[in-house]
Amino acid sequence: MPQAHLLSPRGFRAGAFAAGIKSANTDVALLMCDVPATAAAVFTTNQVVSPAVQVGRRHIAAGKLRGIVVNSGNANACTGPRGLRDAMTMCKLVAHVADCQPSQILPSSTGIIGRLLPMPKIERGIAGAAANLGRDAQHAAAFAQAILTTDTRRKSAATRFKVAGETVTLAGVCKGSGMIGPCLALHATMLAYLTTDAKIPAAALRRALAAAAETSFNAVTIDDHSSTNDTAAILASGLGPSIDSARALRAFSDALKDVCQSLAYQIAADGEGATKVVRIDVRGAASEADARAIARAIANSPLVKCAMNGNDPNWGRIVSAAGMCGARFDADRAALKLQNALVFKAGQPVAYNAATVSKSLKSAEVIVELSCGLGKGAATVWTCDLSREYVTINADYHT
Amino acid sequence: MPQAHLLSPRGFRAGAFAAGIKSANTDVALLMCDVPATAAAVFTTNQVVSPAVQVGRRHIAAGKLRGIVVNSGNANACTGPRGLRDAMTMCKLVAHVADCQPSQILPSSTGIIGRLLPMPKIERGIAGAAANLGRDAQHAAAFAQAILTTDTRRKSAATRFKVAGETVTLAGVCKGSGMIGPCLALHATMLAYLTTDAKIPAAALRRALAAAAETSFNAVTIDDHSSTNDTAAILASGLGPSIDSARALRAFSDALKDVCQSLAYQIAADGEGATKVVRIDVRGAASEADARAIARAIANSPLVKCAMNGNDPNWGRIVSAAGMCGARFDADRAALKLQNALVFKAGQPVAYNAATVSKSLKSAEVIVELSCGLGKGAATVWTCDLSREYVTINADYHT
Repeated sequence: MPQAHLLSPRGFRAGAFAAGIKSANTDVALLMCDVPATAAAVFTTNQVVSPAVQVGRRHIAAGKLRGIVVNSGNANACTGPRGLRDAMTMCKLVAHVADCQPSQILPSSTGIIGRLLPMPKIERGIAGAAANLGRDAQHAAAFAQAILTTDTRRKSAATRFKVAGETVTLAGVCKGSGMIGPCLALHATMLAYLTTDAKIPAAALRRALAAAAETSFNAVTIDDHSSTNDTAAILASGLGPSIDSARALRAFSDALKDVCQSLAYQIAADGEGATKVVRIDVRGAASEADARAIARAIANSPLVKCAMNGNDPNWGRIVSAAGMCGARFDADRAALKLQNALVFKAGQPVAYNAATVSKSLKSAEVIVELSCGLGKGAATVWTCDLSREYVTINADYHT
Repeated sequence: MPQAHLLSPRGFRAGAFAAGIKSANTDVALLMCDVPATAAAVFTTNQVVSPAVQVGRRHIAAGKLRGIVVNSGNANACTGPRGLRDAMTMCKLVAHVADCQPSQILPSSTGIIGRLLPMPKIERGIAGAAANLGRDAQHAAAFAQAILTTDTRRKSAATRFKVAGETVTLAGVCKGSGMIGPCLALHATMLAYLTTDAKIPAAALRRALAAAAETSFNAVTIDDHSSTNDTAAILASGLGPSIDSARALRAFSDALKDVCQSLAYQIAADGEGATKVVRIDVRGAASEADARAIARAIANSPLVKCAMNGNDPNWGRIVSAAGMCGARFDADRAALKLQNALVFKAGQPVAYNAATVSKSLKSAEVIVELSCGLGKGAATVWTCDLSREYVTINADYHT
């Protein structure tokens, strides 16, 4: 069986168009379902939300969806009543070409905050994307490409699993490389769209997505800056097998978690200016919440991230980050490994070969393992290093 | 009257010595009081604390102090029982030359975490600094110099005020340019030492220092990384006027706050790689705690800090940072000014000249004013921009 993609699940088409919102690239994209799809979504917890998120919340609550429309290059955030009208107009325009209700469309926007959407371009983009709809891998790639902003590459993942002998396909794409901080229920301009042909009740889909997001999108941080527009949405066409047993639901939930984690990992790997992924594994914390707080504090420390950029086994920054986040932490009971080399244990430095460890940090993935010795709380967070390139990208993005 | 300095208050001497702990510069310093001084101190809230802080807390609790010993180049943190013995040995060595009890000495260390102190060098340093003690401005400068690590310049402040016709002098020095995050009760490797000749009860001194720290050292953030060693301590020789009225106490507290704010500002201005100070003024928040949380979220956002580095009026990052920190925030009631130019109001962008505002951001101090429109909570936080140089400094510090 060929590699699955966003449009492998039965019932989905996608298209994209270059409407001129962000320079020369495609910037308006449609993901449509042939039938009303059971849908679930999680959105940013930022109190400043894009009208797209406001409208999306309403439309998700209203019932099944027929499609998703995304523009990149402009976040339509902090744009007042006009921005709200524009987000609704996006849905209306798609509903018109898809012959459905505007409330069956989920809108997303990503890009610069505080500028009104160029609606003539949006309109042209939606018409163009609708004219380009298709079901093959190229169309999936076109959708994945059009939603990018400062990302350097497309991000996608897919899996298949069997339910009572029948194959379910689950796939997704996402974007995000800056304004990524753990808080989707959720995050900041991270957009993720998932498709499946499973037939699954809406409540079960919601629960599965919320659980999967917690250990994937909510466990990745680039800059701890939660966006106004973060959205992760899944559409289930129901044209495949039914998820109607506890076992099938477990298989579905596991598959969803795998796909979401793969997407989240790709976000960390493509973090603005990133040269490597840093995985923070915290074990033995007093609680899971403590483990998560410690992992995030380490992952968000600019000092730790700079050390990773310089392949510098400066473990004092990691231990001190663990101690400052409010979670219970006792250096005397802790142990720290960098790329499997023990560097700190029981409140004291451990002799290690700094040159060897530094060399081992020159890797596409660095694993930081902190054992707290306090309990059973565990968490994993993915981040990336902080480079001069990050500063260059973000000092010059707007002007 | 000439400009006051750390040794202008009656009763203080200081000295420094280059003991070879950090390359060729002075790295061991003593600040001694001729008489037992009433003392107060605030320390890091990080759960991982240097033995110097552990010993310092005990000695502050024990009563009056005769002096402070500081070494730079090595934080003596995460160094286990041996580190604790070393911190106590530092106090003993000073007590020996000063003919006092070891418990009358406050020890401080700053520098790399996780290395044992080179005690022969420390011993030589203390002997050398003791031999160099003096009361003039050069000795004050030598002390201020010896405590620095990645700082690019000395930081000091002083003031004089009258109590019942008599002059009280209050002065201080500090260091800190990295691992600076708001949490001294308190912070991370920020060291501040203050002297005064006021005669003031210990309890009043403690309260005045805690209050002053809250709106100074605790209101400055470079990287939100609270250190294992943060310490702010004040010694009152009591050789000058008595602070024995409510009015005198108010004058003392105001003077202390002024000196601490000046020192904190100097820390922000000398933040690692900083090209400018950014002052975040939040007004009209639902509470003071909310105002502080919002100001800190803005000050700690790497996206905001990069925009400041690039003179980029990317106000969406500021508004979205305000919305993500948990404090109540409603963009529809907010207004934002950058260098006095209104850029956002009532949920909508305001037309402004981007080139003019960008030009105004090319300044040694940038003022960000966010009005929340929700209540009376107000707070000010100082930070600096995030530059490529910050990454260079912190990627290469250890190795």
